[in-house]
This record gives sequence, C-alpha cells and structure tokens, in this order.
Amino acid sequence: MSDADDPYEGRIRAVRDRLRDAGADALALFPSTNTRYLTGYAEEPSERHLLLFVVPDADPVFLVPELSGEQVRAASAVDDVRTWADDEDPVAAVGSVLSELGVPGGGDPAGDGDSGGGDSAGDSDSGGDDFTGHDSAGSDAADAPRLLVDDTMHARFTLDLRELCPGAEFGLASELLAGLRVRKDDAEVGALRRAGEAADAVVRELRADGDDVVGTTEAELARRVEDRLAANGGGGVSFETIVGSGPNGAMPHHTHGDRTVEAGDPVVLDFGTRVDGYPSDQTRTLVFGDESPPEGFREVHRLVREAQEAAVGAVEPGATAGEVDAAAREAIESGGYGDEFVHRTGHGVGLDVHEEPYIVSGSDRELEPGMVFSVEPGVYLSGEFGVRIEDLVVVTDDGCVRLNRTDRGWRTG
Amino acid sequence: MSDADDPYEGRIRAVRDRLRDAGADALALFPSTNTRYLTGYAEEPSERHLLLFVVPDADPVFLVPELSGEQVRAASAVDDVRTWADDEDPVAAVGSVLSELGVPGGGDPAGDGDSGGGDSAGDSDSGGDDFTGHDSAGSDAADAPRLLVDDTMHARFTLDLRELCPGAEFGLASELLAGLRVRKDDAEVGALRRAGEAADAVVRELRADGDDVVGTTEAELARRVEDRLAANGGGGVSFETIVGSGPNGAMPHHTHGDRTVEAGDPVVLDFGTRVDGYPSDQTRTLVFGDESPPEGFREVHRLVREAQEAAVGAVEPGATAGEVDAAAREAIESGGYGDEFVHRTGHGVGLDVHEEPYIVSGSDRELEPGMVFSVEPGVYLSGEFGVRIEDLVVVTDDGCVRLNRTDRGWRTG
Repeated sequence: MSDADDPYEGRIRAVRDRLRDAGADALALFPSTNTRYLTGYAEEPSERHLLLFVVPDADPVFLVPELSGEQVRAASAVDDVRTWADDEDPVAAVGSVLSELGVPGGGDPAGDGDSGGGDSAGDSDSGGDDFTGHDSAGSDAADAPRLLVDDTMHARFTLDLRELCPGAEFGLASELLAGLRVRKDDAEVGALRRAGEAADAVVRELRADGDDVVGTTEAELARRVEDRLAANGGGGVSFETIVGSGPNGAMPHHTHGDRTVEAGDPVVLDFGTRVDGYPSDQTRTLVFGDESPPEGFREVHRLVREAQEAAVGAVEPGATAGEVDAAAREAIESGGYGDEFVHRTGHGVGLDVHEEPYIVSGSDRELEPGMVFSVEPGVYLSGEFGVRIEDLVVVTDDGCVRLNRTDRGWRTG
Repeated sequence: MSDADDPYEGRIRAVRDRLRDAGADALALFPSTNTRYLTGYAEEPSERHLLLFVVPDADPVFLVPELSGEQVRAASAVDDVRTWADDEDPVAAVGSVLSELGVPGGGDPAGDGDSGGGDSAGDSDSGGDDFTGHDSAGSDAADAPRLLVDDTMHARFTLDLRELCPGAEFGLASELLAGLRVRKDDAEVGALRRAGEAADAVVRELRADGDDVVGTTEAELARRVEDRLAANGGGGVSFETIVGSGPNGAMPHHTHGDRTVEAGDPVVLDFGTRVDGYPSDQTRTLVFGDESPPEGFREVHRLVREAQEAAVGAVEPGATAGEVDAAAREAIESGGYGDEFVHRTGHGVGLDVHEEPYIVSGSDRELEPGMVFSVEPGVYLSGEFGVRIEDLVVVTDDGCVRLNRTDRGWRTG
C-alpha cells in the first residue's frame, strides 16, 4: 500500500480502543505481520529484542536494536522509536519502557523477589475470561496487569516479559487484532488480487510448457515457477514452492526434491508470491507429457474438482466456515475418499498466508464480506499420487468471487 | 548430511543425559533448527501444533498434524510419531502425550482449577538457578515440573503448555542445546565450507560483471545473486539478500529496493545460501562503473578492512568473544568512526544463521575449536554510504581459518 493510504493511524487508534474496552494494559508485538499491519514496518524476527508497545492511554513506542533504528524511523508509522545498542542490556531497556508506559508491575527485571505471590496458572476464575482465551501466570485477576503478546512471539522474549511483569496475565494479540484484520479493505483486496494474477499467469505458462516439463526435477521446476512469479510482478514467494510429483504429491506439505517429473505423473503445484506484502496461494494438479495418468487419477481429480466447486458455491455472508468445509467434505466422502482428505478445507489469507478464518469441520464462525480465504480440498493416496485444487475467494455482499481464475483441469500442452 | 552419518541418535542421547543432569522434566520443541538438529526434520513453523517432546527416561515423541505425518515419519529420526487431525483439539492431544510421558502436572487442559496455587513469578529462590537463566511461573521450586521450550516457540504454543502444566517452571531449550550445537563436527564444517564456496563464486562473478552492474536496481541485482547462488550449488538463500547501494548501505539491515545502482556507488552485498541446511554469510562492499566513489569512502573502507583483519587475527582457542570484538572496535575507533560501528562484530553460524557464540563487546565467552562465527565490522554514514566486510571463520586448534576467501577490496571489473 502506498503512503497515501496511510491506514496505520486508524488501526492504532482502533487497537487502543479495544485494549481499553478489554481492560488490557498493553499489547506487546515483535517483528510480525501484526506489527506490519499496525505500523507498516516489515522485518523478520531475530534474536534481538525489537518490540512494539501499544497501551490505551499513550502513544505507541517502538524499542529496536540500534542498527534497525534508521529503518524503523523511515518505514514505520510510529513516531517514538527508541534504540538499544549491542553492548546494552535489552531486557533493562524493555523494563524502562514498560515502567514509563505505566504498565502495572512493569519494569522489574530479574524477578528478584520484590513482587509477592498470587496464584499461578490454573486459577479457576480465568476459565470465564472470554477475552484472552488463554490464562497463564495470572495472579489475582482483579489487579493483575494483562499483557497481550504477539501470537508468534518467540519464547525468549515472552520469558523476558514474564520476568519484567511478574504476576501478569498473558494473552494473545490475535484475540484483539484478528477481528480487525479479518475484514480486508479495498487496498488489501487489490493487492491480493494482483498477487493472484501473478500466480495465475505462471500456471498458464506451465500449462503451455506441456511436454517440456517432463524430465525436469521438482527443484528445477520450483525454480522456474519462482523466476516466473518474479517476472510477473511478484515480490518473493509467499511460502515454500510445492512441486509434488507422483507419490510425492501424496505428502500434502512436501515442498520439492530431486525427483524427476515423468510423463503421466500427476504433479501438485501449490505456490504463491506477494504484492505489497499480500500473498497469493493457489494449487493446480497437472499432468505433463503424453503418457496416461495412473489408474484412478481421473476419478479422484474429478471428485476433488467437484468438491472445490461445491465449497466455493457454499460461500456467502452468514454461512459458517464449517458449512463450507462440509460442502467439500461431503462431495469427497460421497466418492469414497473421505479418509484421504486429511486436512481442513481452507484458511484465511492476508498479511499472513494462514490466518483467520479457518475453514474447518464444525466451525460456526460466520462468514462476512471482506473475508479472504482458500478453498482447497485434496485427496492423498499414499505411495501413488495426490490431488489438490485451490483458489482464494473474497466474500462479497451476496456470495464470493475467486481471486484465481485459471482452468482447474489437469491437462496441459 | 546423508543418512549414513546418522548423528541424531547420539544427539538425542546427549539431550536426555543433559535433561537428567539438569533435573529438567521435558524438552518441548516445535519446528525449529533445534528440531532439525535432533531429528533431521526441517519445517517452518505454522499455526498448527507440531511438537517434539524429549524426556530423560523415555523415547522421544513427535506430535504432528495428520497432514505432516507421512513426511515426519519419512524424514525424522524419531520412531514414535503421532498425529492429530484438523477436526481434533491439538491441546488435548498435547496433554495426552505429556501425561503419558510422565511430565509432572502435564495433561491438565484448560487450567480449570484442579491445580492448586504456588507462587507466581518473582520467587526469590529462582534467582540462584543458573541452569534456565530464566524463571517464570515457577511454583515452589522443589516440586515444580521444569519444562524447557524452544527459544523461538511461538507464544500461542507456550501459552498452551502453560495451561497444560500449571505451576511449571519454564526455561529455554538453548540453555541445554547451545552447548551441544556450538562445536561443529566435521560434517557440519564441510557443509558450511561448501556453502561459503557457493557464495564466494557469486562474489567473483559480481566483481567480473563490473560496469554491467551499473543501471540495475537493487532488487534486480538481488535476483541475479540468488540465481547464481542456486547455479553454484546453493539451496535457497540463508537470509534475505542485502544489496545496499549508496545511502541505503548506511542502513545495516536494509535488504534491497528499487534504487538503481549508479557508477561510483558503494554497494554493500551481504548474502548467503545453504548446503545441507547449513548457511553461508559473507559481505563485500564493492564499487561498480568508472566513477570515483564518494569522498571519504576509500578511507572508511580501508579502516573496516583493517578492523576485520585485526579481529580475525585475534581468533584462537581461549581468546574471548569480547577480545575479538575489541580488536575490531579499537581499529575503527582509532580512525575516528567508533560511533558509526553500531553493531556487534559477529555471531555464531550453524543451522541458525545467528546463534552462539555472539562476538559482542564485553563477552567473556571463551572460543573453542569447532566454533564457527562471522567477523563483520562495519561503518555506516547516514545519508551517505555504508561499508561492511564479513567472513565466516572456524576456530581451529591454534587459530582459525576463513570460510570465505575472495578479495576484500572494493574495486571491480
């Protein structure tokens, strides 16, 4: 997204309101998509403390390693960026920020005994706390500070925060942020659409390659996919490129290896790229060369394709995620392959390739306009082959539209 | 490493011994390099529970999503691999495994009140616990189960473990594993050496490109680097490729952007690839085209090069990490640029690109044969340019050898 959109101020404001409503004292993020969503700053986690603190009644504070200071100031929407140097103690620096922000119990490094007891986890009153969904080292709930930490925050940092805030109750940032992030705005859908178009272009090119694919290894084909994603405007891959040929296609999360694609092999091609930070994620199962695919493949492919159609057809506002999953599952079960459909039907997609809503059996999560998720049933016959067909869809006011539009059949050339 | 090496059984045995010696009840890992080191299984973390449990007196157990079961069985050295399906509760599955493995207090999902108090964090007796380095929700230390969790384990999983083991004391896996991993065996050094050779080959090619680099964008040059790393036998990049041209080079962790490389621009080129999971990591600062580099560049480059030589010269068994850092820092301070050398001198490299030992000011960590780390002083002049020169070194019995051997000067063509 361009600076002109500047969505960050509004997002930070919404988070501060939600913290206040929830009676939480602070949100502590580290390098993650939550941080990118709130500030525009994108970085991978490292072993160095890089933390963003948002509290209800003060401006957010970024505490970052000195060598990241210039970039964070340039690329984030946060004005108050502080740094610590490699020869300083980052935990003490975190403690100072927590104290200054008025986080109760904050700023007491080392857990050296000046904070009294309080019951450890397992206190019965936290079972009724719908907000965090988790309880942890909560002391008496009435006074305990409540900290929400990034869902992906590494243990090395959460342990530090626990030392600094003895007796605090910990929860996950997603409980507060997922509700904001799950409905995509126009700029977000635009980026997702462009990422989908880049992936679609590569699928068309692979289909046109036809026989030429026979004899390449999975790794070579993955490299070809990645080069073409970049050539079609993508910025890096959104997850490790999957080229599952023959029996490797029966391992749903096999990425790619040294196996050579033979004529007639079913090949599961699951890949994506990013545009403005937003990913694509689609799958086609193709057969290259002029040999026939293995026995049973045509039937399984037809079944998976029907299941995918049925599930996409079930997507509309007010339907539940579980109903979408059931539509796919019933189609595959009716063909007798229910046990070979070993995963959920889909997952939400945004700055994270896997995020809310999860399209999983039994979920009563209601679909809302602006949600974006994958619909990707699959059947996996161990030692033989796999079939998966996947598109992203955006929920609209009266149904959904797909973000992937290439042919879903298996023929190429 | 090939299966023939099968180092995993010995590593697991060493971990079980160390757990016993430390009085710890369990090691809980998730998809990480620790898991790869102990089992050979490599995967990226996801939102699904994929956990490895190692206890002193039973065989290790892998609990993985059903869709990963086949791969984990095929690719890991662990025999006992259990799966949970997308429509099951993974937390309950974790609880069952903990109960079965006899982890005290394990297997009590939901923190529903059947476990008594115990003091929350901040108990004074844990300050004397040298083993974990961290204390946390410890109850009375004598009986509290002790769990060591992966340093990078995501909060969403550690919160679950805390619910399941109310009153447990948590520590970090690195306290137990870092000592094993820090000394590389011959197979590991061999892989690191081959990864270094792939990166060196690309540096030589870039140098030979000379004028041809002028007019390309940083992103295009990064792509060229990555294609060539693959062509030279590398498997993917070991971190995001850094091409910092002109003023972008002054942001030490800038990756690459749309800026075009102009003749005479200093360009910081910091990139690496992997061989058998082990990374390379080197940096050269080059100038392309026939314009002169900016004023002051030659002097800064000479200074950084001298600092790097001095630091490499200080590496030998028994020297401390702090002494190596000081050698680099003193050289740069003597030239008047001490304030512009804003990061530590280096970091250990193994399955993680950043791991022990950290070559940081004041560290009294003694160097041992088999340690591998970077030596990478840099000077960053905001708004102008940056200079960094980096090689990996392996500590030998009487000094060290470099794993990167290309010219360290800035001239090209």
